[in-house]
Amino acid sequence: MDQTCSGLFRTRSQVAGKIDHTLLDPAATGSRMVNLCREAVQYGFGTVCVHPVWVATCTRLLAGTGVKVATVIGFPLGATLPRVKAFEAGEALLAGAVELDMVMNIGWAKEGSWSAVEADISGVVQAARKVPDSLVKVILETSLLTHSEISEACRRAMAAGADYVKTATGFGAGGATVEHVGLMARTGGGRLKVKAAGGIRTAQTAVQMLNAGADRLGTSAGLAILAGFEEIDCKE
Amino acid sequence: MDQTCSGLFRTRSQVAGKIDHTLLDPAATGSRMVNLCREAVQYGFGTVCVHPVWVATCTRLLAGTGVKVATVIGFPLGATLPRVKAFEAGEALLAGAVELDMVMNIGWAKEGSWSAVEADISGVVQAARKVPDSLVKVILETSLLTHSEISEACRRAMAAGADYVKTATGFGAGGATVEHVGLMARTGGGRLKVKAAGGIRTAQTAVQMLNAGADRLGTSAGLAILAGFEEIDCKE
Repeated sequence: MDQTCSGLFRTRSQVAGKIDHTLLDPAATGSRMVNLCREAVQYGFGTVCVHPVWVATCTRLLAGTGVKVATVIGFPLGATLPRVKAFEAGEALLAGAVELDMVMNIGWAKEGSWSAVEADISGVVQAARKVPDSLVKVILETSLLTHSEISEACRRAMAAGADYVKTATGFGAGGATVEHVGLMARTGGGRLKVKAAGGIRTAQTAVQMLNAGADRLGTSAGLAILAGFEEIDCKE
Repeated sequence: MDQTCSGLFRTRSQVAGKIDHTLLDPAATGSRMVNLCREAVQYGFGTVCVHPVWVATCTRLLAGTGVKVATVIGFPLGATLPRVKAFEAGEALLAGAVELDMVMNIGWAKEGSWSAVEADISGVVQAARKVPDSLVKVILETSLLTHSEISEACRRAMAAGADYVKTATGFGAGGATVEHVGLMARTGGGRLKVKAAGGIRTAQTAVQMLNAGADRLGTSAGLAILAGFEEIDCKE
């Protein structure tokens, strides 16, 4: 566990604040949203990340707590129309979401239609601009992309005005890797933050991702990750 | 292969017309859409089923051929807002789609919020009513439901005015089963058709689903299924 103590993020509460406490199971019910929000307050997670249909519920449950509500747009395949993504973003913001994790159009990226990829992102960013302090994260699904496609996607996300790029949906073939997080952080050069998501289930992996350049973690294993920290004794 | 010859659907062309030739890979490019449409015309598939972002392309490619364009709404998790599903439906119809495979709100079904499930379906049906001869299919993701939930979902789809219920997205845990198709067909009682989708990859499975009561098949293995029929010799 030495690696866990070697980076900037070494305390339980520092890491908790970086976690989007995530519940995207399509079969999840309202009572599971209540539990999710209760846990987020209790453990100090930065946000809860839920489907658009649960945003209003979670916004109500979390009012006055400081925990924000994030949601997903065009999720998890990213292959709906740009106008639909922008509309979905607007509706989610109206319902109380302040962070939008949108999925990039992956097919357009694969065929090199980068102007279309950028315009698709831009539509969601424009919707978000109407709500002060809202953020847009662009999910790349990096396991489907080459390194040069990942870099170009980061540049297009930046050009479109997005705040973050994010590795994966958690519903695709692959999750976050240290290599991809590092590549995304370097390409962003500090102007674009990185959210690592997909397969992050232990304290050690969480810290590896933060040390690789991630500023935010998306995971449904936040409690297990924090429990892992209890066992680590990092002296100053 | 006796089973393949025992039902109503025994010829290659009869089955081809029942197949929604499906390509929902999020990384698929325009050139794969061209191939998909070419195959659909060549083999006589009833429709192509693609993501909304490819509907306009496929509509243009298939103009005058008799092959229709189907698309997916709220896909594959069904957990976006009802207004977003209705908007997405309207945009997809404008782009040329005439069949809409929408995902039901599964979480609401699991918690018994059936009025909300029905209203969500109804929003898409209302959008479709504006386009003559358009169809709405409601994807239940049956592997996540109990038998009584499947029956209730069928009744709600009927009450909302949908044309079909459909077993699965192909992106979830389970696919079509003969048992679920039979249950859906019996609950529909002829007023609601059934589309079997998820894991249908051989001629034998295709015919089993049709014999169990399916009127339509969703599969990305249409060519393999038809090739399987070549090997079957069903005498009258």
